[in-house]
Amino acid sequence: MSNFSHWNEEGRPKMVDVSEKEITPRTAIAQSTIALSNELFDAIENKLIKKGDPLQVAQIAGIMAAKKTADIIPMCHPIMLQGSNFSFHYHKSDKGYDLIIRATVKCNEKTGVEMEALTAVSVAALTFYDMCKAVDKTMVIKETFLVQKTGGKSGDFFHER
Amino acid sequence: MSNFSHWNEEGRPKMVDVSEKEITPRTAIAQSTIALSNELFDAIENKLIKKGDPLQVAQIAGIMAAKKTADIIPMCHPIMLQGSNFSFHYHKSDKGYDLIIRATVKCNEKTGVEMEALTAVSVAALTFYDMCKAVDKTMVIKETFLVQKTGGKSGDFFHER
Amino acid sequence: MSNFSHWNEEGRPKMVDVSEKEITPRTAIAQSTIALSNELFDAIENKLIKKGDPLQVAQIAGIMAAKKTADIIPMCHPIMLQGSNFSFHYHKSDKGYDLIIRATVKCNEKTGVEMEALTAVSVAALTFYDMCKAVDKTMVIKETFLVQKTGGKSGDFFHER
Amino acid sequence: MSNFSHWNEEGRPKMVDVSEKEITPRTAIAQSTIALSNELFDAIENKLIKKGDPLQVAQIAGIMAAKKTADIIPMCHPIMLQGSNFSFHYHKSDKGYDLIIRATVKCNEKTGVEMEALTAVSVAALTFYDMCKAVDKTMVIKETFLVQKTGGKSGDFFHER
Amino acid sequence: MSNFSHWNEEGRPKMVDVSEKEITPRTAIAQSTIALSNELFDAIENKLIKKGDPLQVAQIAGIMAAKKTADIIPMCHPIMLQGSNFSFHYHKSDKGYDLIIRATVKCNEKTGVEMEALTAVSVAALTFYDMCKAVDKTMVIKETFLVQKTGGKSGDFFHER
Amino acid sequence: MSNFSHWNEEGRPKMVDVSEKEITPRTAIAQSTIALSNELFDAIENKLIKKGDPLQVAQIAGIMAAKKTADIIPMCHPIMLQGSNFSFHYHKSDKGYDLIIRATVKCNEKTGVEMEALTAVSVAALTFYDMCKAVDKTMVIKETFLVQKTGGKSGDFFHER
Repeated sequence: MSNFSHWNEEGRPKMVDVSEKEITPRTAIAQSTIALSNELFDAIENKLIKKGDPLQVAQIAGIMAAKKTADIIPMCHPIMLQGSNFSFHYHKSDKGYDLIIRATVKCNEKTGVEMEALTAVSVAALTFYDMCKAVDKTMVIKETFLVQKTGGKSGDFFHER
Repeated sequence: MSNFSHWNEEGRPKMVDVSEKEITPRTAIAQSTIALSNELFDAIENKLIKKGDPLQVAQIAGIMAAKKTADIIPMCHPIMLQGSNFSFHYHKSDKGYDLIIRATVKCNEKTGVEMEALTAVSVAALTFYDMCKAVDKTMVIKETFLVQKTGGKSGDFFHER
Repeated sequence: MSNFSHWNEEGRPKMVDVSEKEITPRTAIAQSTIALSNELFDAIENKLIKKGDPLQVAQIAGIMAAKKTADIIPMCHPIMLQGSNFSFHYHKSDKGYDLIIRATVKCNEKTGVEMEALTAVSVAALTFYDMCKAVDKTMVIKETFLVQKTGGKSGDFFHER
Repeated sequence: MSNFSHWNEEGRPKMVDVSEKEITPRTAIAQSTIALSNELFDAIENKLIKKGDPLQVAQIAGIMAAKKTADIIPMCHPIMLQGSNFSFHYHKSDKGYDLIIRATVKCNEKTGVEMEALTAVSVAALTFYDMCKAVDKTMVIKETFLVQKTGGKSGDFFHER
Repeated sequence: MSNFSHWNEEGRPKMVDVSEKEITPRTAIAQSTIALSNELFDAIENKLIKKGDPLQVAQIAGIMAAKKTADIIPMCHPIMLQGSNFSFHYHKSDKGYDLIIRATVKCNEKTGVEMEALTAVSVAALTFYDMCKAVDKTMVIKETFLVQKTGGKSGDFFHER
Repeated sequence: MSNFSHWNEEGRPKMVDVSEKEITPRTAIAQSTIALSNELFDAIENKLIKKGDPLQVAQIAGIMAAKKTADIIPMCHPIMLQGSNFSFHYHKSDKGYDLIIRATVKCNEKTGVEMEALTAVSVAALTFYDMCKAVDKTMVIKETFLVQKTGGKSGDFFHER
């Protein structure tokens, strides 16, 4: 079994030493899903708000949050992101709609960008909630997870779902 | 139906004017859940890490994130938080364990702290993931939502779940 | 003549003591203008970029920057902004187009929001530049100034232009 | 014609992928000018404020802002700045004085420092305004632009003014 | 004996609930001292650096840090500072000189500004070190403490030294 | 004698140009000490606070502060930290106990991490003060200094104490 890498010998957390790791290209894709009511979906689709687009604000917030990851997650290393992109898709669900948010993040570093991708989709989801909560406070953010990562010593990872 | 409050007349987002709102005590409680494998739960329970506690780092990250909310969520108003607290509980699930994270946030302002509470639990969940991802990358953060809010013109809200 | 308020007795800068000032509603409006080439204006108008809108990103950046003002301008007091809004207008000029950016900011504090409004339009202009600089690096940001302020001991101010 | 580089296929903004770009030394010089009244210029020249120097605070604010660029401008990549310097010159104008602010920024990266230089001079100008606004609120920040850049695939650029 | 106020019932830290506390004017004064070699003191005194003044940068950094306190110290409440000022004095010591840095901070809140004053002097001392370390890396920052505080339920405090 | 490196030709501070420096592995160790009363030490030792540990919060704050160094210290270059770790030891003193805090920071850059290590221990000490100040406000943070650095053109440094 792998072991926890964030504690030091005295039992307190540390930022792990990555100085001996290799610099390799790394990518990570994370996904989050928000459950919307039909009422909220219709409000967005029927463009009750002229030209307004909650996804615009969500995406910008997500990209900015990816850059703040090392400031938000205590033991994360600072990373020079080389690119960050989003996709958004609505799917009909039993009770309304699911908005599926995916973020892809790239770097060329000694450590990966999993947390950057997860932070990006989480903040995009929170921002979508903020933009729409006047219409519907019951939205649920569900199933935020790491879809895949590539690069680094531990190799590639694909979530089996 | 309520209407979207974050767009201006030109169709672009704005930070809504709350100057005419009343200052009232406000609270919000948000919840997030992380699904863990049995392997990860055992690793934590068996204290394979001397005195180490992922929840410590998660909680501190969550409290700090609550204070950063207006910097992370584009249209949120700055808020003087008056207190912020967390609870963590493990529950046995079909496939392993669920860690249930709750955050309570308080203020006395013209606008509420729903986003602060949601940001706090989201960042606590992300931090827990970061602390434990060397053991298990398949963790899923599920069901992040607003449990309740009190105070403000729109009145109290309780999520019916 | 008024005197400089940001130096202390030893000749070094300080954050001035506003504890004796009155809390009053305050507003400020600032304006910035960007000169665009015809080529750039046409590229935007002809929607060569599907649904893309540089003003969306500029506006969001400006609103977020207004909240960061006390972190960016050394001697500014922290302020609880109560609202922030933008307008954007294109005007034909001799050499192309002028994009006129206006930001309105509100608070209810012991000190004004002039710097918040000026920071908002400046960052919106910088962001517009960043979004469009692949097309045209010669854009000039010109005439950033305080249009008006209301509230506070020094009274209302209107720029005579 | 070059095309916009900040939108993705779905029409929303992204942080462009620079992973395939080459690492090269890059510099950028930006300039901003503030128009001062004679009254304000005299107040500064006559050292009505012992040892106080608005340029000191402006320069420090500008250097710190250059480091914050990726946090302020949504689609900017994080950059490891290797140096940042300023010059300030007063010129007599028709109505008073022009303070000309120039900032030079250096890096060795896959993307340039144009926005860092522009952000540095803009924040220096805003800070100068803040330091002196008790004397004169009518100051206008005019003609902020990129003077030149060197390095990178698009080659060197010199503003023809 | 007073008890620790930053842990919750589950034994993990929290941001204490101050909602029931009274809003009162509060001040805090903190002090830090740096021991300098004679060589370094002479270099500063003899103005080997034209117009350069390490205290300028130290003071500005300290004032900015006071505003960042709630972002730096995990359990601190956000505070609307109403003013912040510094004094600097050199004293001859056995081995060289002592630079004594004092910061005064004011607010009108439910909680005090002790940490803001302590953070201000600490960052001013660190900045002084940074500005001068090319000349002398052996500088020691010694005796950083809270000189006094006024306001609040626990009453006034004066350090007996 | 070495000369000051942070001023430019006009006598104002600058971020020094490190573009010609070599990239080398660099480490820095800094130390800070807090003097505690017997009463406070006993309160911690007797675990009057169940599972609570002021050192946990101090260490996390210190690690996060190391990453913020370039945002806190005006003329510091941004640095990609590769690791950060802490040790804490109590020693009996004449009047009570001394808590000795050490931080080690690593990077592979053109400039060193002395300020990162010093900032880390200073913020850890301030956070310890914040966590315990309800019990004892008389704590003194004493003797913060650079213990050693390795790497870089100026060579290794060891404080002779």
